[in-house]
Amino acid sequence: MSVVVSLENAREEPPRPTIDSLVALTAEDLAKVNETIVQRMQSPVILIPQLAGHLIAAGGKRLRPMLTLGASRLCGYRGDRHIGLAAAVEFIHTATLLHDDVVDESDLRRGLATANSVWGNKSSVLVGDFLFSRSFQLMVADGSLEILEILSEAASVIAEGEVAQLVTANDTETTEEDYLEVIRAKTAKLFAAACEIGAVVAERPKAEQIALETYGHNLGIAFQLIDDVLDYAAHQPTLGKTVGDDFREGKITLPVVLAFRAADEDQRAFWRRTLEDLEQKKGDFKRAAAMLEKSGALKATVERARSYGAVALQALSIFPESAPKAALREAVEFAVQRTY
Amino acid sequence: MSVVVSLENAREEPPRPTIDSLVALTAEDLAKVNETIVQRMQSPVILIPQLAGHLIAAGGKRLRPMLTLGASRLCGYRGDRHIGLAAAVEFIHTATLLHDDVVDESDLRRGLATANSVWGNKSSVLVGDFLFSRSFQLMVADGSLEILEILSEAASVIAEGEVAQLVTANDTETTEEDYLEVIRAKTAKLFAAACEIGAVVAERPKAEQIALETYGHNLGIAFQLIDDVLDYAAHQPTLGKTVGDDFREGKITLPVVLAFRAADEDQRAFWRRTLEDLEQKKGDFKRAAAMLEKSGALKATVERARSYGAVALQALSIFPESAPKAALREAVEFAVQRTY
Repeated sequence: MSVVVSLENAREEPPRPTIDSLVALTAEDLAKVNETIVQRMQSPVILIPQLAGHLIAAGGKRLRPMLTLGASRLCGYRGDRHIGLAAAVEFIHTATLLHDDVVDESDLRRGLATANSVWGNKSSVLVGDFLFSRSFQLMVADGSLEILEILSEAASVIAEGEVAQLVTANDTETTEEDYLEVIRAKTAKLFAAACEIGAVVAERPKAEQIALETYGHNLGIAFQLIDDVLDYAAHQPTLGKTVGDDFREGKITLPVVLAFRAADEDQRAFWRRTLEDLEQKKGDFKRAAAMLEKSGALKATVERARSYGAVALQALSIFPESAPKAALREAVEFAVQRTY
Repeated sequence: MSVVVSLENAREEPPRPTIDSLVALTAEDLAKVNETIVQRMQSPVILIPQLAGHLIAAGGKRLRPMLTLGASRLCGYRGDRHIGLAAAVEFIHTATLLHDDVVDESDLRRGLATANSVWGNKSSVLVGDFLFSRSFQLMVADGSLEILEILSEAASVIAEGEVAQLVTANDTETTEEDYLEVIRAKTAKLFAAACEIGAVVAERPKAEQIALETYGHNLGIAFQLIDDVLDYAAHQPTLGKTVGDDFREGKITLPVVLAFRAADEDQRAFWRRTLEDLEQKKGDFKRAAAMLEKSGALKATVERARSYGAVALQALSIFPESAPKAALREAVEFAVQRTY
């Protein structure tokens, strides 16, 4: 496929980026987090563990709880409170995914298929609510009002970001700043909170809390920007999701914002037809991907991701060298260089 | 309309039941609660205050926050923490209503109209999430882990009850116990929590906390049972909602459970067709209401509501006589005898 952008710099030929160090560092703890997750999603109402299990077993990278675990280790934490808190973070993320699955009548008309098609809108909403409540129960059991404050604020900002995204959806006039506001709220906020609570649980000074919050925030933005690029540029077989999903849904992501800004009238008409009016024909996605590559929008997005990644790395500088620090550094490289 | 059941005993001719005493007792506090609600539902994302305001301004009775306020007064509380907590309770309730509005494709096909038709499923979900998070932020600002525990458990049980209801929806084989399980979770739990936290905030002994939780729980069941009766038996003009909503949605409420249990095959076929298959013809609602009256199912439901109401009143007996106690007693009479 000619439109695939290589995210690697051809001269350096780095190895395929991974988060193996973070995975290895947190493996034992993450197994306990998974136990907690499975245990706390139980309910006599069997649709709940069924539906939640479907989503949780499908897995994903467990990136957010791993960040809580890794940040706790970075701060020298030796207790077990970070287990329940990492599970709480994952429950917030899972609830958000479930609620993201909810579709409107208009979407149904367009024939968009989502995970919720198996169980329906209402189940997605209510099971999401259950997991969200469970998340708070885990935090309450932990007993730190400071952590409750951080994560309840994160939940509130995420919801605000989701609504903001809904309002700006399919609007090609979206600016780079509008877009960044949305992903700061939708994605970066939970990354930031997941990292920050690692310092709180370890009772480290405020400076380390802020450093980890900054790290998580910038990592989250970088991660989301590359996600947006991969939706147009990834090799389908190595990507977890389907290439072209954002395009089909008419999502206005940064590559589109940048390309639209530099586009001529003919190109703008193309974006308006495909993303605003959602009138898409065979070949349109290929044309879109080619336009994003040719205009340099994909490359510019990757460059921005690298900048945010650099800020994330910089934030770690106050911590002495350690295995957790190396693992968290690697996570940034993964977020920026990943092709999956 | 001949099927209207008079909920008043003709010989006693009591005055039209109200919650005027509770309203008067809590008026000043409730004004502050409303201020807090309006203030805390603000967001730069204007769809949030728009949508939340629509629902919150539409008002309803503000019964749950009034219960928190009344219970606090009953316990002699003199601070102002009950204001934020009452707002938190109302936010949980509002979020639940918004999420209840979400419909599935199947509902859309049946042409059921809900409040969300103005803004769509997704907005209802996300604004509900925002209010839910705000509710937790209010509790965290209050700072009582005990109250956080009570309300996060309530939120979790409510979500469980909603899923349970979804699973048993349109199933005429639902038993009285199944039904009671659902309304204990969906309705009674929040009533109970709203009352219980009044004792917690006033730092009263555990016995008073339990008494208020028992009061709220039984009041909630009584309230819901009469709600179910009114859906078939109320005079349309005096009821806030539309008579027949439950029937049109195929909701299996206690009157139906009781009538179905005593029904002959012909009648059962009617209930299956109308509530399970949702094949409803002109005149079906009238026939349903008549069947519920004739079978004694409406009367039996009212009698059960009275029993729960009696338990609620009994629970108040440990408190000395006072204006708040009289107001909470009146709320039980209102729940049981109301015709609107």
